[in-house]
Amino acid sequence: MTDRILLAHGSGGELTHRLIEELFLQYFGNPTLNELYDSALLKINGQRLAFTTDSYVVRPLFFPGGDIGRLAVCGTVNDLAVSGATPLFVSAGFIIEEGLEYETLKKVVASMSEAAKEAGVLVVTGDTKVVEKGSADKLFINTSGIGVADERFHLGYKKISPGDKVIINGTIGDHGIAVMTARGDFGITLEVKSDSAPLNQLISLIADDPNVASGVRFMRDPTRGGVATTLVEVAEKGLLDIVIHESSLPILEEVKSASEMLGIDPLYSANEGKVLIIASKDAAENIVSLLRTHPLGREAMVIGEVKEGRGGGVFLNTTFGTRRRISMLTGNMLPRIC
Amino acid sequence: MTDRILLAHGSGGELTHRLIEELFLQYFGNPTLNELYDSALLKINGQRLAFTTDSYVVRPLFFPGGDIGRLAVCGTVNDLAVSGATPLFVSAGFIIEEGLEYETLKKVVASMSEAAKEAGVLVVTGDTKVVEKGSADKLFINTSGIGVADERFHLGYKKISPGDKVIINGTIGDHGIAVMTARGDFGITLEVKSDSAPLNQLISLIADDPNVASGVRFMRDPTRGGVATTLVEVAEKGLLDIVIHESSLPILEEVKSASEMLGIDPLYSANEGKVLIIASKDAAENIVSLLRTHPLGREAMVIGEVKEGRGGGVFLNTTFGTRRRISMLTGNMLPRIC
Repeated sequence: MTDRILLAHGSGGELTHRLIEELFLQYFGNPTLNELYDSALLKINGQRLAFTTDSYVVRPLFFPGGDIGRLAVCGTVNDLAVSGATPLFVSAGFIIEEGLEYETLKKVVASMSEAAKEAGVLVVTGDTKVVEKGSADKLFINTSGIGVADERFHLGYKKISPGDKVIINGTIGDHGIAVMTARGDFGITLEVKSDSAPLNQLISLIADDPNVASGVRFMRDPTRGGVATTLVEVAEKGLLDIVIHESSLPILEEVKSASEMLGIDPLYSANEGKVLIIASKDAAENIVSLLRTHPLGREAMVIGEVKEGRGGGVFLNTTFGTRRRISMLTGNMLPRIC
Repeated sequence: MTDRILLAHGSGGELTHRLIEELFLQYFGNPTLNELYDSALLKINGQRLAFTTDSYVVRPLFFPGGDIGRLAVCGTVNDLAVSGATPLFVSAGFIIEEGLEYETLKKVVASMSEAAKEAGVLVVTGDTKVVEKGSADKLFINTSGIGVADERFHLGYKKISPGDKVIINGTIGDHGIAVMTARGDFGITLEVKSDSAPLNQLISLIADDPNVASGVRFMRDPTRGGVATTLVEVAEKGLLDIVIHESSLPILEEVKSASEMLGIDPLYSANEGKVLIIASKDAAENIVSLLRTHPLGREAMVIGEVKEGRGGGVFLNTTFGTRRRISMLTGNMLPRIC
């Protein structure tokens, strides 16, 4: 481990994983935490619950398609939903830099409130801290969330088998590119919108259809580190390989253009309204059809499949007919994206 | 409301209360949040749970008797325990300033782990964000916690009646004074130790004795804003008055001395290992005796009583025989104390 914490330790890529394994698991390790799912899966007096936390430090606070408040609610709701839980309750912890305009805070809180209504969750507890000017950058928000496990899902890394399909509910990389272009540091005037949205209602469509729900093996939202990093994690934990097809990846034209200008691969760019679903071959087409009936799933696609392998291998079949190995995000391409 | 957020909005006093009522309750308001207890009291499929969140921004990170990590675990455990719940699970969200020494982070994580063991809770989920140098002050930690309601307690503002006694488990103001003196800004060389400790085992002693537990009306931990602010809150919500006796207040000699030098009233100084218990007259002496059997309750005392009144009135009978009205903390005497 390095002597000092680097930006890359927070990027969701390789150094984040090392920090989790070499520090947090060493000291906090317990069977629930060690699973490293998007939510902790708890059992309290027989009741199965999911519990998750995320801090949001995105810069700028407002960007096309969202803001730190919307992100803070949707991100936590999505961590519960992709764990196969119905999100119910959210907490909100604010760390505010002295001097923040009251109107800015109000806009963020209003946006959180709207996102909570959209997702059907209640903000039930909160906390506010204020630090001196210069001791934080405007506003950081932590949200934690509690959901109740949806017994219609049976998910886990170990349920994934060769032949399973990899599905995504829409276009890749929008959020990361939206935030990067909104910073205005790059002289890019293209407006890319963040995909920030609560996915719980989309996912409940799947749960509601028992034949389809039983075909779902695993879900995860590809946030920091993007689709690439998330699939490598899944392949490592599932002890399998994954192949994805460049020609099937749904990517918006403006995201492609901005990515080229920024030198960023959309596969590593964060998403905040996307879910990767690993499902049995038989269920895959039905899942895609079902997703497409919902506004957040219109561009749903099968983008790849699971293969036998040594574990951890993710490969991209390119449009040029070559095959390229995909690794986790290394370094820190996209600081403070969420 | 002011145009900009001030340090005092985070002090736990009057401006914090206004921010909660004029902003957060306006946008997030729901019956659970509106109660403004230390934890949200939830019901999930018949299971009664408590859920709470707090961010920790204390400066310096290490101080006599504790550190930000110990504080982050104990604070959240205590918010659950004083709500009459058994703390079970804790989340940990880290916001780290780029460049923080790895060893510092490790010491904090080790301390959190130790505090979690002491309290008997598990850290089950977490998150790490890193922001650029200058965008945060070293390290902020959010912890949220889940507990299961202890059905042996029946607590609430509305259970408090005239004649009830006000009990505290030990000395007042230690934590705030410890942090202030540790900053070294005041040329004070007195070492005052923070009282930072998990109170759940102390409180479960009371729960275990059914005759005593049934006499407890309300509990709260007097953190930011101190005993004074907490009692004013209780008196306002309970629509009662409270009288406390200066001669009964347990205050360490070194806290008295440092308070005088700093110009701080220990009644407004934060505590991180104290609980105020409002209990029936009949149960009060038994509760004090029981508390004194535990290391965290050796100096337990009845410090006052509840009176009929217009609500919100808290009065101090001084050692000089006068009576002085106590108000909530106004302004921001003690920034970044937790």
